Amino acid sequence: MAKAIRLAQKGQFTTSPNPRVGCVIVNNNNESIGQGVHIQAGTPHAEIHALREAGKSAKGATAYVTLEPCSHYGRTPPCAEALIKAQVSRVVIAMTDPNPNVSGNGIRMLQDAGIEVSSDIMSAESAALNPGFIKRMLTGKPYVRVKLGISVDGKIALQNGNSQWITGSEARRDVQHYRAQSCAVLTGSGTVKADNPSLLVRAGEAKFAHYPLEAIRQPVRVIVNSADDLSRDYTCMNDGHPTFVASTQHNADTDNRQHLTVDAMNGKVDISKLMLQLGDMQFNEVWVEAGPGLAGALMMAGEVDELICYQAPKLLGDKGVSMVSLPTFTELNQAIELSLIESRQIGNDIKLRYSLNTPQQPSIAL
Amino acid sequence: MAKAIRLAQKGQFTTSPNPRVGCVIVNNNNESIGQGVHIQAGTPHAEIHALREAGKSAKGATAYVTLEPCSHYGRTPPCAEALIKAQVSRVVIAMTDPNPNVSGNGIRMLQDAGIEVSSDIMSAESAALNPGFIKRMLTGKPYVRVKLGISVDGKIALQNGNSQWITGSEARRDVQHYRAQSCAVLTGSGTVKADNPSLLVRAGEAKFAHYPLEAIRQPVRVIVNSADDLSRDYTCMNDGHPTFVASTQHNADTDNRQHLTVDAMNGKVDISKLMLQLGDMQFNEVWVEAGPGLAGALMMAGEVDELICYQAPKLLGDKGVSMVSLPTFTELNQAIELSLIESRQIGNDIKLRYSLNTPQQPSIAL
Repeated sequence: MAKAIRLAQKGQFTTSPNPRVGCVIVNNNNESIGQGVHIQAGTPHAEIHALREAGKSAKGATAYVTLEPCSHYGRTPPCAEALIKAQVSRVVIAMTDPNPNVSGNGIRMLQDAGIEVSSDIMSAESAALNPGFIKRMLTGKPYVRVKLGISVDGKIALQNGNSQWITGSEARRDVQHYRAQSCAVLTGSGTVKADNPSLLVRAGEAKFAHYPLEAIRQPVRVIVNSADDLSRDYTCMNDGHPTFVASTQHNADTDNRQHLTVDAMNGKVDISKLMLQLGDMQFNEVWVEAGPGLAGALMMAGEVDELICYQAPKLLGDKGVSMVSLPTFTELNQAIELSLIESRQIGNDIKLRYSLNTPQQPSIAL
Repeated sequence: MAKAIRLAQKGQFTTSPNPRVGCVIVNNNNESIGQGVHIQAGTPHAEIHALREAGKSAKGATAYVTLEPCSHYGRTPPCAEALIKAQVSRVVIAMTDPNPNVSGNGIRMLQDAGIEVSSDIMSAESAALNPGFIKRMLTGKPYVRVKLGISVDGKIALQNGNSQWITGSEARRDVQHYRAQSCAVLTGSGTVKADNPSLLVRAGEAKFAHYPLEAIRQPVRVIVNSADDLSRDYTCMNDGHPTFVASTQHNADTDNRQHLTVDAMNGKVDISKLMLQLGDMQFNEVWVEAGPGLAGALMMAGEVDELICYQAPKLLGDKGVSMVSLPTFTELNQAIELSLIESRQIGNDIKLRYSLNTPQQPSIAL
């Protein structure tokens, strides 16, 4: 199963909206006779690739799959059916399907055909492959990571806005990795106006394993711009890659700029409604590169799953721009609580990865 | 020598103003026949303890010492003389004396007596025992560590000043360790007025190895208070432990409050002059627990050797109080550069230890 999970990682940048899944088929001597990985929606699933490789030897063999085989006809026929046809004798499943409506159906289909099934044997490891897919199946919303490049004193820029570069090149390269594996990069109109970023994966920096360089998969950009007043002169708006502008207006699409009308709250885009819309658009993972306002609003709305800080060994001082805008707290228990999940040195910077699991307050608008 | 260095650590809390020194004497079969550690100024040095334990067997033996044996009559006779009298045949020295005026004198005295000497064989390890003693010998100033308890966004308090407790109990216990090994704890009058801290080692929390619990060694307090206007009602001023108030005034001592008159710069205490005075007072290590103003002034004056942050997994938001006040920078290369020397989890917090080696600007006053 560990091998199947490693296989699944090959789909890291390409499977969405589908989950990353790997499959290894072994014979009764515990020899691998077929391996498969799901690469792209609409193409065969991991089980099908592995069964093809195993051929007739699959009969009587054991299939290790990182996620419960599907039981329904989608763009491809159900994998449970293929495993039954191939007459495997046993299927070991790392994690059942997170979608409560279909969870267990694949297992039942296999069991009804007389196949022995063991499930949930490495569910944490399998879940770590697919935080976005799982969250979307459970809540209808994508898995949201907020990235901030900060100084030790929590500043993202000097008073005059100067911020290039606080963190080092290794940290910036790590960011490319997240952009590449995310379905969408979310930002605010303030960041677009201030920095005019492309927010795309930079080809020269995207030299990571399993990344389909020949046809770089770019995330779409989503810009929160309640007033829908961004000029077409910004890179995001005219570089030929898709950009969604989320506003409270009812405007039409223009060129590569697609319009997302989101319910308003206090006259501005309702962040939680936007997340539901992004979930409906089948976005599994959303990567946020935004200013203190949007970052803070997402946190206060309970819409952030992970905060990733690249902390440079610098002090910018109290006059600098603070990384996150929050309401005026009067008690320390109002502060946003984080749980450290990773801390490591990356170049001269420290990467700090935190989970935020508790909604802080009812959704607020921005 | 590694054993001698471990021995020297036993003096961590008690040797000042002397350095921490350990000594191991081994015979020609490489068996330890005498061990010594310097514990307190005015009492025998490490070599003397080790020679006493070795007795007559010291003749022809090898002495490993973490610092060059002294050659002068201070409160105790010179150790080089004692080693010569004991007729050891060889002395191995981790590090020569940092004081440029006496460095090499002890070695020469031993060599003149026909003793073989090897020196500087573990100077980095020995130096790490005595950062304060060494800096004072070289510059006349103490080694200064600034401690800050911060959130991930670099805040030390909420807007209303509420700050108890940002960090966890393990981090606060670690602070006790530094207070205990420092000669002085430095703070500003603002912190005294806001928090009324004792800044002493809390007996219940001081359960660390080699700490002389039976007679807790307390650091003195040094309060920067340019106007000398602190009332006697504050704990520091009336708890029976010594406190120095550094001001630009020429006032007399009162009770346990001793007065330090420091030259003024722009009407306030000149921080660099104060450091020279603390060096003259034979303070090796100074531990700073202060607000953003004093912390920032020390950094801008180039008077900080180490910054130690206890970073709690919390976000206090942009309205909170920033950890360090610095001038308004317009270019990122004006920011204070740090070098990470330690990063580790301590309870739920992260301890980040940085060195600051470059003076940022000419001394400024506060």
